[in-house]
Amino acid sequence: MTGSFEKVLDLAERRGFFWQSAKDLYADSPAGFWVYGPLGTRMKNKIIELWRRAVLKEGALEIETPVMLPIKVFEASGHLEHFFDRLVECKRCHSRFRVDKLIEESTNTKENLEGMSDSQLAELLKNVKCPKCGSINWTDVKHFNLMFTFPVGADATAPNAALRPETTQGSVIEFKRAYMISRGRLPFILAQVGKVFRNEIAPRRALIRMREFQQLELHVFFDPEDVNSYREKLEGLYDYKLRFHTPKDRITGGITEMTVKEALESGYTVNPLITYWLVFYQRFFNEILGFPLERLRYRELLEGEKAHYALVHWDLEAYTEDLGWTELVNNAYRTDYDLSGHQRVSGVKLEVDSDGKKVLPHLYEPSVGVDRVVYHVLAYSYREDEERVWLSIPRKIAPIEVAVFPLLKKDDMVRKAKEVARNLMEEGFYVFYDDSGSIGRRYRRMDEVGTPACVTIDHETLVNDTVTLRDRDTMKQIRISLRDLPVKLRRFLDGENLESLEK
Amino acid sequence: MTGSFEKVLDLAERRGFFWQSAKDLYADSPAGFWVYGPLGTRMKNKIIELWRRAVLKEGALEIETPVMLPIKVFEASGHLEHFFDRLVECKRCHSRFRVDKLIEESTNTKENLEGMSDSQLAELLKNVKCPKCGSINWTDVKHFNLMFTFPVGADATAPNAALRPETTQGSVIEFKRAYMISRGRLPFILAQVGKVFRNEIAPRRALIRMREFQQLELHVFFDPEDVNSYREKLEGLYDYKLRFHTPKDRITGGITEMTVKEALESGYTVNPLITYWLVFYQRFFNEILGFPLERLRYRELLEGEKAHYALVHWDLEAYTEDLGWTELVNNAYRTDYDLSGHQRVSGVKLEVDSDGKKVLPHLYEPSVGVDRVVYHVLAYSYREDEERVWLSIPRKIAPIEVAVFPLLKKDDMVRKAKEVARNLMEEGFYVFYDDSGSIGRRYRRMDEVGTPACVTIDHETLVNDTVTLRDRDTMKQIRISLRDLPVKLRRFLDGENLESLEK
Repeated sequence: MTGSFEKVLDLAERRGFFWQSAKDLYADSPAGFWVYGPLGTRMKNKIIELWRRAVLKEGALEIETPVMLPIKVFEASGHLEHFFDRLVECKRCHSRFRVDKLIEESTNTKENLEGMSDSQLAELLKNVKCPKCGSINWTDVKHFNLMFTFPVGADATAPNAALRPETTQGSVIEFKRAYMISRGRLPFILAQVGKVFRNEIAPRRALIRMREFQQLELHVFFDPEDVNSYREKLEGLYDYKLRFHTPKDRITGGITEMTVKEALESGYTVNPLITYWLVFYQRFFNEILGFPLERLRYRELLEGEKAHYALVHWDLEAYTEDLGWTELVNNAYRTDYDLSGHQRVSGVKLEVDSDGKKVLPHLYEPSVGVDRVVYHVLAYSYREDEERVWLSIPRKIAPIEVAVFPLLKKDDMVRKAKEVARNLMEEGFYVFYDDSGSIGRRYRRMDEVGTPACVTIDHETLVNDTVTLRDRDTMKQIRISLRDLPVKLRRFLDGENLESLEK
Repeated sequence: MTGSFEKVLDLAERRGFFWQSAKDLYADSPAGFWVYGPLGTRMKNKIIELWRRAVLKEGALEIETPVMLPIKVFEASGHLEHFFDRLVECKRCHSRFRVDKLIEESTNTKENLEGMSDSQLAELLKNVKCPKCGSINWTDVKHFNLMFTFPVGADATAPNAALRPETTQGSVIEFKRAYMISRGRLPFILAQVGKVFRNEIAPRRALIRMREFQQLELHVFFDPEDVNSYREKLEGLYDYKLRFHTPKDRITGGITEMTVKEALESGYTVNPLITYWLVFYQRFFNEILGFPLERLRYRELLEGEKAHYALVHWDLEAYTEDLGWTELVNNAYRTDYDLSGHQRVSGVKLEVDSDGKKVLPHLYEPSVGVDRVVYHVLAYSYREDEERVWLSIPRKIAPIEVAVFPLLKKDDMVRKAKEVARNLMEEGFYVFYDDSGSIGRRYRRMDEVGTPACVTIDHETLVNDTVTLRDRDTMKQIRISLRDLPVKLRRFLDGENLESLEK
């Protein structure tokens, strides 16, 4: 059982993980924009750093391209033509709705609406009342492009630039130069961390559907003829089980477990390279971020559901009771769709040399929506019993790593506790000092924001320089010497338990 | 002597620190947008991390507010009214120009154009020919707002949101909530790292004047009546010399050195809190980023030059031969200008409790333009002699920390070198492995991107597990055992020299 959406949201807003932007002062502000408070910013940054370290080891080169790009880029990428939601307006009350959501919510249909044509949807709409005024009097289905566009420069009179809806295009148009200056070889991996923007018709569910959000993207360029690339990286992983939700599984809601060996032999995962990255992300969420394996699956998308650029497309989804299965990572095999498009529109050759031949690389792109990851970390960490509420956040990504308390608000204890806190901060820990209220309340406040360790300075400390170290999850405490504190605390945050630290 | 603008730019583009966005494919793309390549991204991220660590120790809480904000926010902040450049159009050829730049470039005036009224400028324009067609036939001086605005949502028909031109407004409108949830006390410091956008009429000089750039901002909220706040933080710093360029110094181009004590006693730096932050940033650039002190100064801005929100305003400037004095940090004492504005427009009370009374805090804001910092780090690091070009980047922020080479491309050496490289990567170093070309060329390639240490695996390594460690700046080498390599390399990056490592 995970924390309910309401409880997680309430805790997040109350303690400063995240909250809606600008609403405190300007209630009519557009929805879909969120602020990360001090705790949320720290936790998100830690997740990003873990990801950076992990992809660096895979040879990825991080670059940073602007969020604003010339509109021609999105002509070449197909976003101007294909990146839209479908919208209808009630002719009577002029309310506008996203067509698929409108039909879903009023008919409870399980049909694949994304795969339908405009006229098929119009047909279904004949039975749907306007949620605002109750009439059935719809305009034609319209295409509402989700990109923000505008004129840049004092001379521009029409939009000549757009805010990117994905970081990908930046990597694609800079790929060739990045490849050359890095003396690259295929497979060649660019990484990007950055903001993206979509003018959603109906932003909702806090960090799940936002208008401004953040992606951690990999752009893996490879030679499609080099079928053995990455095969050696899969050694030792052949028995690892990938969890798929195939089109067949949709009937039962089930999961198809497939070993890497089976996936490769059946050809289901196309090639070793793509297979490796599917393994990478399932493990990243399960082993590094602690997401339960049974709550993860790769959902295979069908024609009509897939993005316009994708030949094969899986969503890595995570399950919570309240939100159901939610996409966290978009994994798209984009072939040479993007490079070809830019080659055609720009007239610039984008092939590169690889092993003595010219290759127009294919692109595989796993794209993490980090805001959704933040929400799921909190939902999976949420615990409550009669006594307390606590977040069992993986220790490495906890925003506050250690709290330091004087047991009593007495001068000598306060002075000592502040000194301990300052020393730990100098050692590079994220420390929170607190001396207000009872010690029990102070523990509760730290439990509620997932602080893994609390260090308390008491009478004994003043005598023999030992302190208590308390574990958030078990509430057990051990006594250790101040001299050992930094090293033992580091080991604790790296995963050791109190028993082993006591030895 | 620093690296010339052309040489730095050439090296940056050739080796992948930064280059112009989208131009390789779409030559007519709007100017003022830059890509950070693999080396530039790493170096910039390291600078940001150093800053984060430094401000964390000062008690700053980092938050992250959206780059897109409701337009009402900028009505309250005064940006809709005041945040513009002045523009004229040639009536004959319809070219548009930023008025001050146009006059500066065609008359070489040293006058304070920013302080002039529209009609004063129009008067000066009577003697200025159009650089495009040569005629003198100007429109009236117009105000060109530098913000990008647009409609958000399917129902919006007019702009209801804008891209922020500074991160400040996000911190100001979320200040009260951040203060409450953090159980804050004044002074209360928020930090933000993020993109900002300005529709510059004439973007230029690479990373110096961009349309999309990144700021590291502190928002220091304080009680203006609490004049002793921060006084204890200045202990030990009273003899530290701040370097000012006062209005008087403009005549001579000189510098006024002022100790902290003198600054406080004369009242020139307003209060201890502002004084402390002026010291903090001068030291951050000098002691942490290695900028020469004689190339740093605080330029006091005059009426007309100051931003519309500022009571007192210094630009921390850095000097290079080619660009002259360039602003790196905007240091503005904004008083309660922003909080008052939002209180008035929103109708929400923004006072907070502090020491038993209600206070509408004042705001002091130092805002770092990190892109300009990146450029200056490269310019100050640039070295050349008959033999080589190298970047003497401070070791801590070098994008590649260590290169690993096999002396010869022989199987056993290559295998060993790859193993060493992998181990160093596992230890958390940023490593570059290279076995192509002569060892001399490989050293040169690393020198040119500022890699502080090169480790070479040779015949002796295979016999006794020792390697050579080479210092980029001195080109000296020492021999150390592989077992000691990670620890000694860490010490080297932390600043020790080879001699001390040999002991």
